[in-house]
Amino acid sequence: MSLGTTQKKIRSSLGIGFAMMLSSVAMPAFAQEPTLSEEAFEASKQLYFEQCAGCHGVLRKGATGKSLEPVVKTTAEDGTVTESGTLKLGQERLEKIIMWGTEGGMNNFSDIMTEEQIKDMATYIMMDPPKPPEMSLAQMKETRKVYVEEADYPTEPLHGRNWENFFVVIERDAGKVAIVDGDTKEVLTHIPTGYAVHVIKASEHHKVTEPEQPGRFWYTMGRDGKMTKIDLWQTPDKMLVSEVKIAYDARDVAVSGDGKYVIGGGYWPPHFVIADAVTMEPLKVVSTRGVNTDGDYVEEARVAAIYTTPNETSWLVAVKELGQMWQVDYSDLDNLRIDKIDSAKFLHDGFFDPTGRYFQIAANASNKMVVVDTKERKLEAMIDVAALPHPGPGANWDDPNCGPVAGTTHLGVGTVTVWGNDPENRPDDAWKVCYEVETDGAGLFVRTHPNSKYVWADQTKHPEPEIQQSVQVISKETGEIVKTIQLTEQEGHAAVHFEFNADGTEVWVSNWNLADSLEPNGEIVIYDAETLEEKARVKGLFAPTGKFNVYNRSNHVT
Amino acid sequence: MSLGTTQKKIRSSLGIGFAMMLSSVAMPAFAQEPTLSEEAFEASKQLYFEQCAGCHGVLRKGATGKSLEPVVKTTAEDGTVTESGTLKLGQERLEKIIMWGTEGGMNNFSDIMTEEQIKDMATYIMMDPPKPPEMSLAQMKETRKVYVEEADYPTEPLHGRNWENFFVVIERDAGKVAIVDGDTKEVLTHIPTGYAVHVIKASEHHKVTEPEQPGRFWYTMGRDGKMTKIDLWQTPDKMLVSEVKIAYDARDVAVSGDGKYVIGGGYWPPHFVIADAVTMEPLKVVSTRGVNTDGDYVEEARVAAIYTTPNETSWLVAVKELGQMWQVDYSDLDNLRIDKIDSAKFLHDGFFDPTGRYFQIAANASNKMVVVDTKERKLEAMIDVAALPHPGPGANWDDPNCGPVAGTTHLGVGTVTVWGNDPENRPDDAWKVCYEVETDGAGLFVRTHPNSKYVWADQTKHPEPEIQQSVQVISKETGEIVKTIQLTEQEGHAAVHFEFNADGTEVWVSNWNLADSLEPNGEIVIYDAETLEEKARVKGLFAPTGKFNVYNRSNHVT
Repeated sequence: MSLGTTQKKIRSSLGIGFAMMLSSVAMPAFAQEPTLSEEAFEASKQLYFEQCAGCHGVLRKGATGKSLEPVVKTTAEDGTVTESGTLKLGQERLEKIIMWGTEGGMNNFSDIMTEEQIKDMATYIMMDPPKPPEMSLAQMKETRKVYVEEADYPTEPLHGRNWENFFVVIERDAGKVAIVDGDTKEVLTHIPTGYAVHVIKASEHHKVTEPEQPGRFWYTMGRDGKMTKIDLWQTPDKMLVSEVKIAYDARDVAVSGDGKYVIGGGYWPPHFVIADAVTMEPLKVVSTRGVNTDGDYVEEARVAAIYTTPNETSWLVAVKELGQMWQVDYSDLDNLRIDKIDSAKFLHDGFFDPTGRYFQIAANASNKMVVVDTKERKLEAMIDVAALPHPGPGANWDDPNCGPVAGTTHLGVGTVTVWGNDPENRPDDAWKVCYEVETDGAGLFVRTHPNSKYVWADQTKHPEPEIQQSVQVISKETGEIVKTIQLTEQEGHAAVHFEFNADGTEVWVSNWNLADSLEPNGEIVIYDAETLEEKARVKGLFAPTGKFNVYNRSNHVT
Repeated sequence: MSLGTTQKKIRSSLGIGFAMMLSSVAMPAFAQEPTLSEEAFEASKQLYFEQCAGCHGVLRKGATGKSLEPVVKTTAEDGTVTESGTLKLGQERLEKIIMWGTEGGMNNFSDIMTEEQIKDMATYIMMDPPKPPEMSLAQMKETRKVYVEEADYPTEPLHGRNWENFFVVIERDAGKVAIVDGDTKEVLTHIPTGYAVHVIKASEHHKVTEPEQPGRFWYTMGRDGKMTKIDLWQTPDKMLVSEVKIAYDARDVAVSGDGKYVIGGGYWPPHFVIADAVTMEPLKVVSTRGVNTDGDYVEEARVAAIYTTPNETSWLVAVKELGQMWQVDYSDLDNLRIDKIDSAKFLHDGFFDPTGRYFQIAANASNKMVVVDTKERKLEAMIDVAALPHPGPGANWDDPNCGPVAGTTHLGVGTVTVWGNDPENRPDDAWKVCYEVETDGAGLFVRTHPNSKYVWADQTKHPEPEIQQSVQVISKETGEIVKTIQLTEQEGHAAVHFEFNADGTEVWVSNWNLADSLEPNGEIVIYDAETLEEKARVKGLFAPTGKFNVYNRSNHVT
């Protein structure tokens, strides 16, 4: 999730991690002109990491965003070399771009950074990018903390609640995860995790290697690379059982089908780390630096996302800049099998089809959905969709014309694209666009439930508050939008992300208080999945974004 | 093959490639003191690449040799940080080490470099190591040259000779490969290849995917990364049919079992490249940068060697610094399966057992032979052997006590270690040392033939000329040395490497004129494999080292 336009001013209290990680590295040799005080350099470096690196990369070679290197040389076909880069753009132009954004998709940061921060940032990006250090397995092991020893894990749930209808809720900027009782709608606890948790994953039911208690253990990954383990059988005050830091910058995490291993993926260093899911002891590091599908070496080849394959003893690791899905088999870590599946750039987020065989993932810069066949461990198809697909948890359902289908929202445009996804029974419809729905605005997430007649899409990326605060409900039967629901009219709030409860009778939507996200002013608004009427509000949440229902997520209900 | 002590003074005529490859890189920001003129810097950089990088790495982080970084910080268990590195050693001490070598295994370069070269080199290694550039697939494609189009390939041998008893001979420093008729002992041609060809590989018989004409096409890899293709059916003047450069520094090459692909392994950039074996068009690049078996990231993770698995559709890629064997399946390049098999550092060279299932490779810094099971794609065993094992082509035979065995020479000591290698029929003897033979000196190569009663070992690494010029013959029956044969008494010559002829009645040994290796003063001395008497000499060769008999190599006769 990256919502540059709508984040509030950066807080120095979060200025941890990246500044420290560079302290052992020699100061870079700056180009002639641009200079900053050591203090301003460190502050800009930290701010760049938090606000800019996600799109432009820590090495500034560009990804979703453009290259921000001081000098970029481009050779034309006739051999002419042209120079561009931040030095050529210069201080004034850079400040304007940062302040107001561009037509090309750059967000405006005028309401996110102070004028001085923008001035310093313009200077900072004309200086040579400092290269962050590596992180060894030994260093990771030293960061491990155990709050509850395995021997003290309860043998049955200690709270007497219906934990399989718990919702695990990301409280983004607060660096917390809330546990909400889906039956009683009570917020049970706010668990401290890594900074800006991106994704949370549970141990899941598996066709080959069932874990002991599917859905009991949850693993979070913070943007700061901290991976935490949560035990839902514990009393709420003791649910955080252990943690380990596996990177300086990270996005995703997944659990093996047998529940024995947890894998975390780093943005920097660009690698993934396999740890013991019980003890959180890191066991194995694999670099994802590599050569992309164009044949160019990419040092900053980041792990965008990781998923457990429901039918195979493997994970799918999306290596964003390589345009490759790596199917990593965890059945033998010492003889690690990896199938490197070529597809398209830049891989971002995806979801399985209902059978669990096919994985559908956005290659957002290519405007494609990539389909991987996890049984054959190869590319199955690539589907042309609209600008910058972003499905989040995704949605699968049955269409009256095309049979089994799936859909995605887009970051770039207010469109939900729907395609056939049953190659066994509907080969003529499979991996072809069935239809498109025009929504009011570009969004981040689409979601449904087998018991529901509707597909829900958010519009969080639209600049207008009214649209950003509204979600749209699409009929599975007609493919038409049947209702637009504005969750809130509060300034600085937006509607984002959906999750159904365990039996599919409720839809939970986040009312995200992004303007004051460190206050508990966020809500989850709960709708009746049948009547689409508001049913309840869960209040007192810090910047609630992603929500994960225990039953749905551990049973592959998509 | 690396024989630092015995190479002659570096010739500037070979000073190509590395100097040019860095021209587009900004001059490094030097530490305070050490400086060189641009000319001396470039000359030292080139000399370092040719003489030092093999052991110490282009980034100078060390491998077989020690780290040569200006500042190395070591943290003790109590947290104390100590600084070492070349800056601490200083100009004078460094000059002495380069000139005279060390007890720790550093060669003396007093007879290889001039005093001024040594002086400049001492300064150069106190300066920050310049990082060489990457090489993209597009850049490789531009280097491809076709001398004979595929359409013009002959449909039968054009020379009427018994080409299956040809010997392909590396003429190391001359950058050539000689083709010698094994029946007539004539030198047919000297084919220009890359600089200091390290290894040559042929298309081979394969259990699953037989190529069209096994043994017909040969592929060389130069230290300069130039990969050439040789067609033995051509008239000698046209045998070089195509070439492509896949790295700036490289060591090995192999052909797929079906003869469709050729793979080249780079030292820098650290990667392997799969090319069309017919056209030599590069198709796919895979980086080998990674995390080693200790859990540390290694930027310079070099491909030491590559082998075709006789029974599987795969290659074994030895990633030296990672301590990993990567079994790379070539049956689907777009969905490339790699099994990363953890073993020990630093992987160097190896050979298959007679069944073709097990691969036995030296992990020389660990004093181990590593055994990979290519059927299960996993580590089978690790065998403790003597200092710095180096088998080269290796040797397999039957021992009266231990059954099927294999043996290796060692770079570090005059020992041939022999171990059982038949886990199916002799599980109690398999992967255990059967016996050791003390020879007069450390060597590079061991070799035998199923029709021969003897195993031959060279002693090329011993400092005494008389021993360096002698090879030793071991009885398979008794494990005793039955004969020591001095090939030559000529100053600056050494005996190295063995190959049998197709029917196993002759042993070919190189009389390597290393002191004047650009002159055609080298020989191959041919012995009767039964009587061990000299039979003939093939003269007029430039620095002959490795020799490859077409029949033996394409039929897995080891």
